[in-house]
Amino acid sequence: MKRIRTIEVGSHVGERVHIAGWLHSIRQMGGISFLVIRDGWGTIQAVAETEDELSPLHEGGLSVESVLSIEGLVISMPQAPGGIELHKLQIEVITPVMEAPVVPLNKPKLPANITTLLDQAVVTNRHPARRAILRLSAGAVSAFRSTLTARDFTEIQTPKIVASATESGANVFKLDYFGRPAYLAQSPQFYKQIMVGVFERVFEVGPVFRAEPHDTTRHINEYVSLDVEFGFIKNHLTVMALLRDVIAGILELLCEQYASELKLLRVQMPAVPGEMPRIHFAEAQELIFQRYGMDVRGEPDLSPQDERQLGEWAQQEFGSDFLFVTGYPMSKRPFYTHPDPERPDYSNSFDLLFRGTELVTGGQRLHLYGDYLNALEKAHLPLEPFEFYLEAFRHGMPPHGGFAIGLERLLMQLIGAPNIRLTTTFPRDLTRLTP
Amino acid sequence: MKRIRTIEVGSHVGERVHIAGWLHSIRQMGGISFLVIRDGWGTIQAVAETEDELSPLHEGGLSVESVLSIEGLVISMPQAPGGIELHKLQIEVITPVMEAPVVPLNKPKLPANITTLLDQAVVTNRHPARRAILRLSAGAVSAFRSTLTARDFTEIQTPKIVASATESGANVFKLDYFGRPAYLAQSPQFYKQIMVGVFERVFEVGPVFRAEPHDTTRHINEYVSLDVEFGFIKNHLTVMALLRDVIAGILELLCEQYASELKLLRVQMPAVPGEMPRIHFAEAQELIFQRYGMDVRGEPDLSPQDERQLGEWAQQEFGSDFLFVTGYPMSKRPFYTHPDPERPDYSNSFDLLFRGTELVTGGQRLHLYGDYLNALEKAHLPLEPFEFYLEAFRHGMPPHGGFAIGLERLLMQLIGAPNIRLTTTFPRDLTRLTP
Repeated sequence: MKRIRTIEVGSHVGERVHIAGWLHSIRQMGGISFLVIRDGWGTIQAVAETEDELSPLHEGGLSVESVLSIEGLVISMPQAPGGIELHKLQIEVITPVMEAPVVPLNKPKLPANITTLLDQAVVTNRHPARRAILRLSAGAVSAFRSTLTARDFTEIQTPKIVASATESGANVFKLDYFGRPAYLAQSPQFYKQIMVGVFERVFEVGPVFRAEPHDTTRHINEYVSLDVEFGFIKNHLTVMALLRDVIAGILELLCEQYASELKLLRVQMPAVPGEMPRIHFAEAQELIFQRYGMDVRGEPDLSPQDERQLGEWAQQEFGSDFLFVTGYPMSKRPFYTHPDPERPDYSNSFDLLFRGTELVTGGQRLHLYGDYLNALEKAHLPLEPFEFYLEAFRHGMPPHGGFAIGLERLLMQLIGAPNIRLTTTFPRDLTRLTP
Repeated sequence: MKRIRTIEVGSHVGERVHIAGWLHSIRQMGGISFLVIRDGWGTIQAVAETEDELSPLHEGGLSVESVLSIEGLVISMPQAPGGIELHKLQIEVITPVMEAPVVPLNKPKLPANITTLLDQAVVTNRHPARRAILRLSAGAVSAFRSTLTARDFTEIQTPKIVASATESGANVFKLDYFGRPAYLAQSPQFYKQIMVGVFERVFEVGPVFRAEPHDTTRHINEYVSLDVEFGFIKNHLTVMALLRDVIAGILELLCEQYASELKLLRVQMPAVPGEMPRIHFAEAQELIFQRYGMDVRGEPDLSPQDERQLGEWAQQEFGSDFLFVTGYPMSKRPFYTHPDPERPDYSNSFDLLFRGTELVTGGQRLHLYGDYLNALEKAHLPLEPFEFYLEAFRHGMPPHGGFAIGLERLLMQLIGAPNIRLTTTFPRDLTRLTP
C-alpha cells in the first residue's frame, strides 16, 4: 500500500491507509494505547486496542522517536486531535530507538532553556514548534523570490570568498586562500550593484558573515540575507515602494500557505498599509525630543531605544507595525550611499523599522564614476581594493538602489522570538560552532 | 511616459514608447544613425534620421555603454533585428560614458581570451551571450526548486562555517573564528541528513567551498550545490528516480522559458528518458575492458577517460546523454555510504554521468546508529567531531538518501562550455579572487 502523509489522512475516512514516521508519544489508558505518529508534515493519533497490535513495539522496549510504519483504518473521532485517528493497526518498526531524547519533543512547549535547546538542535528541531518556525522561514524565502520574479528580477549567486572587506576593514572573517589572505563576504553589496549593469533587476538569497564580537539576543555571525538591487530608479522612494511590496508579498503568502504554523506560534500578523508611514531622520530625532524628552538631536545614528520609541509612535499615530526612517546622515552611511541632492549632509537612504527594531537597510547608491572617486577620497579609502567594482561605474550605470532583509531578524520580529538564535536551523555565534 | 522593457516593444507597433538602457552599438550610414539599445532583457534598434534627434549624444563625445532614455515611435521593419525599430527619437542621456570597454560587448562573440574575459567579468557579463548563460543558471535553480517543492520538499539553509571538515580533513578552507579554528563547509551533507529527521524531504541551494589545488577546466573552488536529501526510501534506486525527475524538470523549464537563450548559445538539449540507463560499477569496468581494451577492472574508481567511454557507450547503445553508474566500491565512498546488502564491498551509491562527465553523486546513506559507530571505526575516524551528527541517528532516522548537483558543472555540460569558469558570475580558482 502506498504510504500517504499524515496531513492527507483526513480525506480517507473509512479506508485503510499506510503512514510512516516517528513515534512522537505513547500513553496507555486501561488496556488501550494511544500512539501519536509524527511525519515530516504533521502528526496523527493511532489507537491500539489489543496487545497483539502493539506487540512489534514491545520487543526490546522501544522509545519515542523510533521510526514506524503503520497501516490502519481511518476513523472520524471528534475528540481526537485533528478529528481523526487510526484503528486496527498493523505496526512495523523501521528503526528502533532505545533512548529518549534529553529534551522531550512531545510537550506543547520544549521544556528546556535556550542553551540546551540549541545544544540539542539536531533533535529539538524536530519539535512541532521549532519546525513551524523553520517552515515559516522557508515560506518567507519562497515569497521573497516569487514577489521579485513576478517583477522581472533575476536571481543571482555571487562569491562568498572575496579579496577584501566589502565595506570596511572591520568585522570580517579572514581565511587562508591558497596562501593568500581572503575574507568571507559580509554582504553581496558590490556584486549585486555590478549585476544591475547586467540584468538591471537582481536579487540574491545567500549567507553573509559578520565577525562582530556581539553577544546579544539579536546578533548571529552567519545569517541569510535577502538582497535586492535594481536600476532606473528615481531615488530611494522607488526602492521603498518595492520593499513595501516585498514585505506585503511575504506576509500574504505566509497567511495563505502557513496558517497552521502561524496559529501554532500564535503570531500576530501585521497589516501592511498601501504606503508605509515614513519620517525623516532629523524629524525623528525632533519627535523623540518632543515626545519622550530625550535629546538625541545631532546624534549621527538612532539607538535601539530611539527605534523602539519611533516604533511605538508609528503604532499609535498610524496603527502601523512598520515605519520608514529616511535621510540618515551621510557620515554614518557607507561610501556608496547617494546623498540627498537638496540636503547633502543627509542621504537618500532608509531603514525600515518593524515593531521598533531595524529590519531592513537600503537606499539609493551613487551611480556616477566621478562620484565614486570623490566618495572614496572623502572616506580616506584606497582605490586599489575597489578597482574591479569601479569598472561597473566607469562603463555606465543607471541610478539604482536596493535593500537587504535579514531573514532571521524578520522571523524574530514576526513571531516575537526572544532570541534570534531560535529562528534558524543551527545558529553561529561567538561561542557556538556546533551543531 | 512609463518606461517599458525592450522585449515588450513589439506589442506597441504604431505607438510612441519609452525605453531605457545601455548604448550597445551605434553606426552611421549616409546621415542615418542606427543605435542599438540594450536593457536588462534584450536589445532594440533605434534609428535617428536627423542630426537634431542625435544631438544629446554629441555633447562630449559619448561612448557605447552610456545609459540612455529614449522615446520613439514603434515601426514594424522586417529587415531590422527582431522586426521592429524605433523612429522619431527623443533621446536623453542618463549616464554619460566616455570610454569604451576594453572588450567590445557588441560583437556576436566576445573577442577576448578567457583570462581577459574573466578579468573583465564586471563588464563582459553584460554581453548577451554571457547573460544568456547566467540566465540559464538562474532558470536551472528555479526549476530545481519548483520540481522539489511540487514533491513536498522543504528548502533549508544550513551553516557554511563549521567546526570540522565535513567528510575528511583534506581540501577545506580554514578560517579564524574568534580565535578558534573553523572551516568552510565543503558540502551540507551532515546538515541535510540531520534535517531529514525534521522535514523528511529537504533541499538546499547554496555555496560550497573546496580547497582543492586543482587547476583544470572543470574545477572551481567555490560553487553552487543543488542538494537533496529525503527519507523513507527503499534504496538508492528511489533516489535515482527522483534525480531523473529533477533533471527532467530542469530541462523542461529551460526549454519552455529560456528558448531564446538556448538558441543564442546553440544548445543541443538532451532528451531525458523515462528511466535513465544504468550500469553497475563492476560491469562498467568489464565493458570498458571488452569494448576499449583498457583493463581498469579492480580500480576503485572511474577515471575521466572511463567516464567518457561509458558516456559514448550510453549514447550509442541507448541514444542517451545520461548514464547512471551504480555500486561504486565502498572503499572510495565516504563513511556514511550504505553498502549493497547483497555485495557489501559495493555500495548503494551512484554517479550520474552526463555526456561522459560526472554530474551528480548520490546514494543511500547509513541510517542506523550502530552502523555509524562501526563505519567510523572502520574508517579510523575519531568520534568526537561527529558527535552532533550522530545524535540524529541515535534518535531515529529512516532509510534515506540524496544527491548533489553541481550547478556550474550542469551548465558547463549542457551548453558545452570549454571551461567551467564561464558558467558563473565571478569564478574563484587557485589564482582568481577578483573580480
